[in-house]
Amino acid sequence: MEYGRLPLDFSANCNPLGVPAGVERAIREAAAYADGYPDPLCRELGAAIAQNMGTLPQRVLCGNGAADLIHRLVLARKPKRALVPVPSFAEYELALHMVGCEVIRHPLKAEHGFSLTESILTTALEPGTEMLFLCNPHNPTGLTIDPPLLQHILETCERNRILLVMDECFNGFLNEPEKHTLRRHLSEYEHLLVIDAFTKLYGMAGVRLGYCLSGNEALLGEMRRAGQPWAVSSLAQAAGIAALKEHQYIQKARVLIRKERKFLINQLQRLGIKTYRGEANFIFFYTEIPRLAERMREAGILIRDCSNYAGLSEGYYRIAVCTHDQNLRLLETLWSNGRCTE
Amino acid sequence: MEYGRLPLDFSANCNPLGVPAGVERAIREAAAYADGYPDPLCRELGAAIAQNMGTLPQRVLCGNGAADLIHRLVLARKPKRALVPVPSFAEYELALHMVGCEVIRHPLKAEHGFSLTESILTTALEPGTEMLFLCNPHNPTGLTIDPPLLQHILETCERNRILLVMDECFNGFLNEPEKHTLRRHLSEYEHLLVIDAFTKLYGMAGVRLGYCLSGNEALLGEMRRAGQPWAVSSLAQAAGIAALKEHQYIQKARVLIRKERKFLINQLQRLGIKTYRGEANFIFFYTEIPRLAERMREAGILIRDCSNYAGLSEGYYRIAVCTHDQNLRLLETLWSNGRCTE
Repeated sequence: MEYGRLPLDFSANCNPLGVPAGVERAIREAAAYADGYPDPLCRELGAAIAQNMGTLPQRVLCGNGAADLIHRLVLARKPKRALVPVPSFAEYELALHMVGCEVIRHPLKAEHGFSLTESILTTALEPGTEMLFLCNPHNPTGLTIDPPLLQHILETCERNRILLVMDECFNGFLNEPEKHTLRRHLSEYEHLLVIDAFTKLYGMAGVRLGYCLSGNEALLGEMRRAGQPWAVSSLAQAAGIAALKEHQYIQKARVLIRKERKFLINQLQRLGIKTYRGEANFIFFYTEIPRLAERMREAGILIRDCSNYAGLSEGYYRIAVCTHDQNLRLLETLWSNGRCTE
Repeated sequence: MEYGRLPLDFSANCNPLGVPAGVERAIREAAAYADGYPDPLCRELGAAIAQNMGTLPQRVLCGNGAADLIHRLVLARKPKRALVPVPSFAEYELALHMVGCEVIRHPLKAEHGFSLTESILTTALEPGTEMLFLCNPHNPTGLTIDPPLLQHILETCERNRILLVMDECFNGFLNEPEKHTLRRHLSEYEHLLVIDAFTKLYGMAGVRLGYCLSGNEALLGEMRRAGQPWAVSSLAQAAGIAALKEHQYIQKARVLIRKERKFLINQLQRLGIKTYRGEANFIFFYTEIPRLAERMREAGILIRDCSNYAGLSEGYYRIAVCTHDQNLRLLETLWSNGRCTE
């Protein structure tokens, strides 16, 4: 590795500012009391999330990362047929397959720039669909769902009793999170489950903490029972409560990401790389530079090779938006690997 | 969180010495790096456990507490019929019911002092039994399984292809742990899974860290895939590695527990309370003092009312062996509540 340093990681999509100071402090303090069992109901944390998200505590369920909640949902409901766009986060399909669910893959097409279109509803309305998994902004493309289309999907799912599982793990990184979240619709729509996590937004991937929101409290109860009662450690509960007070940290991260995303996209385009117009804290791109992830890794930089995503092929990659210095290092290395395409 | 005002807790069975200093330090240090994803394969921790337990790293699977591993096992194998003694830890049955398994309850009888007898094998050998869940020392009774009987069970399960799931979460508290563990049999017996946790022994219930051991590596692989990949936080991984170095802490705890268990049993008997001859870090007892748990709680002391265990009724309780001062406080409160029976 270069200069004996740890590899520079652009493959995970976490907040480039690292662990917030208040979160680190909360974990350090909680360590002294870690001999006690965690509150299985996460009451204090749940109340803090509810207040922060403008909802009621009984509409919040915490889990050991968003992935825990995806697995609990699938176990609780054991759907027979579910719809998942591809490419997307692999954990939806992995969880669904575990209960023998038929997974219908809806391809997001390169010719439409991978954006979600009305056609998802045609597939969703085929008989027997019980769940629709969406992610907004989408992973790995970073694209947001057009708000009128999102509203149409929400209404169609509600009318047809299809559970809309909306993964909003990257919502907090958007320029205008409120414009895209479905959080404010929990009261009106019973067939809606919003999944979110502290992982990415608060730079806490090692802590494991996610939550979901639903106006359907019975569903949350089923999910709570679909697994062990002590899934969320007391360290994670303390960390989450502290994280929700980190308003300045989030503001600073949003400003940084907006600026650096623009910078990175510009520079990538100058290298002849095709970028997609995402709004998240990561950038999805296509390039014909051969074996790029491997060559970057040799230079001490990890990027996400997306060729193993269902629905994608060789040449697609995802990088996180990091700090300016880190982004410069990425670009320098990309530049020296990309000269062949100029 | 307000930890300071919690009541005195004899209801959870954790190490009375609290979080070991080295574990607290490890968590505090790991907090600074908690923005990175945890190693999903827990390689460093797994190697440390293997070394400590005298086995190979590929025979270790870590989880988010022992309960996570119980759920993963059941999901991976989806048994149709499993045998569970009652009373015992409720999580076995809860997990089994989640996959629609028929749970056969084998009653541990008051007239046999709740000890496990050969009769468990008669039930186990009924056609179709796929798994047998045992706990040694047993929870909530604290009794160990007679070693010749244990050997007989192990051999019978192996011969009949019944998976023996041996929960050894309290093994480390015994006077002679090696005499009772099945860890040393992993090479010879393919139908054996040993479950253990850091929770109790290292006073780390809030951290969430368990593991299991098996010579059947394919089974461990199935369990790894039966749930999310990042179940164990990086904080827990660091804590576990540090815990395994706490030899003095464990020695000190064993000496304390042996002495205090004897003291508590003596004193309980003087109060006319029927105690069972367990060897664990907790004591199971029967008393006719009415509403004891409720009255103790009013006095700021939590004890485990066992009347809601399957196979038990009103009057059974479990208390953890705590420090001498705490035990004295428990006895004083018990004494003032127990006068009516003298």
